[in-house]
Amino acid sequence: MHSNLWVEEIHNQTFGTKFKVNQVLFSGQSEFQAVDIVQTVDFGRMLLNDGLVMLTERDEMIYHEMMTHLAFFVHPEIKSVLIVGGGDGGTAREVGRHKSVERMINVEIDEMVVTACREHLPQTGRGFDHPHCEVKIQDGVKYMAETKEKFDLILIDSTDPIGPAAPLFSVEFYQNVNRCLNDDGIVVAQGEGVFLYEEEQKSLNSILKTCFPKTGIYNFSNISYPTGRWSFQYGSKKYDFQEDFDEQRLLASDLDFYYYNEKIHRGCFALPEFQRKRFS
Amino acid sequence: MHSNLWVEEIHNQTFGTKFKVNQVLFSGQSEFQAVDIVQTVDFGRMLLNDGLVMLTERDEMIYHEMMTHLAFFVHPEIKSVLIVGGGDGGTAREVGRHKSVERMINVEIDEMVVTACREHLPQTGRGFDHPHCEVKIQDGVKYMAETKEKFDLILIDSTDPIGPAAPLFSVEFYQNVNRCLNDDGIVVAQGEGVFLYEEEQKSLNSILKTCFPKTGIYNFSNISYPTGRWSFQYGSKKYDFQEDFDEQRLLASDLDFYYYNEKIHRGCFALPEFQRKRFS
Repeated sequence: MHSNLWVEEIHNQTFGTKFKVNQVLFSGQSEFQAVDIVQTVDFGRMLLNDGLVMLTERDEMIYHEMMTHLAFFVHPEIKSVLIVGGGDGGTAREVGRHKSVERMINVEIDEMVVTACREHLPQTGRGFDHPHCEVKIQDGVKYMAETKEKFDLILIDSTDPIGPAAPLFSVEFYQNVNRCLNDDGIVVAQGEGVFLYEEEQKSLNSILKTCFPKTGIYNFSNISYPTGRWSFQYGSKKYDFQEDFDEQRLLASDLDFYYYNEKIHRGCFALPEFQRKRFS
Repeated sequence: MHSNLWVEEIHNQTFGTKFKVNQVLFSGQSEFQAVDIVQTVDFGRMLLNDGLVMLTERDEMIYHEMMTHLAFFVHPEIKSVLIVGGGDGGTAREVGRHKSVERMINVEIDEMVVTACREHLPQTGRGFDHPHCEVKIQDGVKYMAETKEKFDLILIDSTDPIGPAAPLFSVEFYQNVNRCLNDDGIVVAQGEGVFLYEEEQKSLNSILKTCFPKTGIYNFSNISYPTGRWSFQYGSKKYDFQEDFDEQRLLASDLDFYYYNEKIHRGCFALPEFQRKRFS
């Protein structure tokens, strides 16, 4: 540790988190955003987009497991998956662990994120190496509007509704998601923060309710995101994530997880009262 | 907002959280610790002991509700409560909401915390004004070793096992807690952080298992504590917090909560896999 180097992320100019850094491994400016990968002292390597912490090696498993696996133990057999965003490869890595998957397309708008993570963040970047994974460098909104393919599962692994991901938070986008899902298809989206992003949570929930007969919100905790408590939201044409959870299949599975388990699958839908009121 | 004033809390010299501050309301040095109360910009007033964030007005309800109310909807009728620590008054405030309580003793070692919170943090400090609440300024370890009283519920609302609270983390202390509990009594203790305090969580769990036939650990999320995910741990002579939860009584209650509800009571016991392994 040679210098007093820190990554600091400040929210609303009044609340911040900071991580001590050993070394800057990559620093670039793409057409869309600033992309940095640094070596932190205690949390492994870290990816930042426009100075915001996207993930650390210490805890990225939590986000990627909770985005991916619930759907796989609800839907009886997911064969085709579309990932929108997810330029670090972590979601592709988790999807690739399921043997039922025959086709996986990962549409990421920013080639620099993919290239930098493949080189400097192999813990997630290796997710793209799965034989069934096809990476398309393309605008996810445009892809979603134009593709003729249909999927069992679509994962919206996006940043927040500022910057390049803003158009992903719209009814039009989710109408296209709906069109590209099979009749029992599921979409799971990064669902925004529990404490600091009430309006963003409500807005996404309202969009999903407009486009899908079944929706839900579930929480997880990590270290990297501001206040640590965050949500995923899902929309589904057929399945309810709580009622249709196949617990026996999870218990019989030989997959091992860092965060996810059968108790978490049920417990993560328990919203604190202030959050439950938000959606009623 | 007149100056660039921040409270910053750094853990292990590598991870920190910071809150912007408008004004310092109280600053003192007691026999035991430094005590500060500041007005933050976005999170209301904040109490710090030795520079560590104890609570903010924005989210203290979460900690105090989750420390207090689960036991009240497990035990059929809690009449007598002992609080050890809790110098801010927030736990006393939550205990005082239950009409079954006839006697409440709050033993706090540091008079300066009580006096400062009564004056500068009335949101929690008013908890001491409950007609059944008796505040004793005394060493909780000594009180626990000497008292002849017995209680239905003992709440260990302490700081971490460094500084004045260190002796509270011992088998000897919890043997005395056991002796001072009625035959169906319960103890709930601040249970340390999920991400950063694995050894402290295991140590407290081991102590509780030594002293009580039933024990458990449950999680909550707030803004103020490092990484935001924290635990309580309980020991009980008779009741299991999950099996003996009286959900109907909670649903029929006219108490309203900010965080706690019947889903949270069940869901908060769902530990992430890495944490579940810690206790197996």
